[in-house]
Amino acid sequence: MAPTHEVTIERLDGEARRVVRDRIVSEAPLQLRARGEPVATIMRTPGHDLELVRGLLHAESVAGAAGMAQVAEDAVEIDVDRSAFARRGLLSSAACGVCGRVALADLELRAREVTADTTVAHAVLAALPATLREAQRVFADTGGLHAAGLFTTTGTMVAVREDVGRHNAVDKLVGWALEVRLDPARHLLFLSGRVGYELVQKAVMFGVPVVAAVSAPSSLAVELAERFNVALVGFVRESRANVYAHGWRIC
Amino acid sequence: MAPTHEVTIERLDGEARRVVRDRIVSEAPLQLRARGEPVATIMRTPGHDLELVRGLLHAESVAGAAGMAQVAEDAVEIDVDRSAFARRGLLSSAACGVCGRVALADLELRAREVTADTTVAHAVLAALPATLREAQRVFADTGGLHAAGLFTTTGTMVAVREDVGRHNAVDKLVGWALEVRLDPARHLLFLSGRVGYELVQKAVMFGVPVVAAVSAPSSLAVELAERFNVALVGFVRESRANVYAHGWRIC
Repeated sequence: MAPTHEVTIERLDGEARRVVRDRIVSEAPLQLRARGEPVATIMRTPGHDLELVRGLLHAESVAGAAGMAQVAEDAVEIDVDRSAFARRGLLSSAACGVCGRVALADLELRAREVTADTTVAHAVLAALPATLREAQRVFADTGGLHAAGLFTTTGTMVAVREDVGRHNAVDKLVGWALEVRLDPARHLLFLSGRVGYELVQKAVMFGVPVVAAVSAPSSLAVELAERFNVALVGFVRESRANVYAHGWRIC
Repeated sequence: MAPTHEVTIERLDGEARRVVRDRIVSEAPLQLRARGEPVATIMRTPGHDLELVRGLLHAESVAGAAGMAQVAEDAVEIDVDRSAFARRGLLSSAACGVCGRVALADLELRAREVTADTTVAHAVLAALPATLREAQRVFADTGGLHAAGLFTTTGTMVAVREDVGRHNAVDKLVGWALEVRLDPARHLLFLSGRVGYELVQKAVMFGVPVVAAVSAPSSLAVELAERFNVALVGFVRESRANVYAHGWRIC
């Protein structure tokens, strides 16, 4: 798999709406096997896979690897005992380690399609960046925080959470929403940065029909959104936006 | 602990160099305990901790939690059996789960201070963003990749790696450097985004004396750099830069 690939998107610019080809970054699982046994799965951009594994083992002090080889496009075999991974807490669960298509397969077992017919106007999306920035007092302070916001489909902000980790910001927001029993089907999730598969996974598990972000999505994020009936919009800036999945929800 | 806190930094602007107070985002471990037993540690910005745990358990389908409570500033107690975490592959190793100061304590056991007396001129740092951007052909293409580059102390680029995950970009770079037996003590690591503790941890394990980045560091990143004798520079942009640790290395 190449580090990027082409997809068909809808490019919105004010009233204009064009179908164009665009490049997105590839995100795909790489399975690590210790003498044949799956021990961990890394989500990465394909390319330089052996360097990735070598660097990771070094950072995590997994010692004693006598060698390694790329045995498939999505698997690296390491000549080391499985226990070296267990000691460092790097062992994935069996569910994660066995299947190359870990993310989708795992989610198929746990999540449901978002069935609500919710739509959002492009004009509503266009106003989100300014609203989120205004709410991000801590961000203005340090430049070090990711933000995630929940908005109604008419653009009213209902909550924002910030964190040094982008996944944490979404977890905090969803945790709050579960507590107040917010109906996810009538809301959209807006993110201050890029969108990897894990963020879409959290959105799907929560049940929100529209995910929009200031920056770029990954290939697996697009795939998950497509599969679970979630609109995925990236590069939301002033009058522009790129729609990567379920454009019928953006009107 | 507050979500941000003040630190003393050196602000470089061309020839000028001033000691000022600045705010950085807090990053600190939160320990999850299942009926008293440590099961996982999350690095997060303090605040909304119960929402964070609730959202995470939901995303990961850890079912059956009868309740939860914040039992310390850095610990949340969940009324659920430990096995619920094991099933989802969320169990940390004992080394990670037991100690509140997980990152530093773990690293103390594995890493050594960077002892080289390497210094880098501010003018060298100022040129890095343009060089890295030029090398980032894929980034220009998709906007979805993080980049990490290794440079000599006089600013010559020796390698760049890109990935959808910022940790992966550094792992790939370090993996390459280990393979070609590059001497880390005479190089600097430059990052296209923000700097959390994990990136500094990887830099320390590799042995590089200077870490510079386009964007903001977290509190724990600063703490690690300080402890292991690594210069940490953030917001490297044109003639400006903020020095967060070991400013004697920047001259």
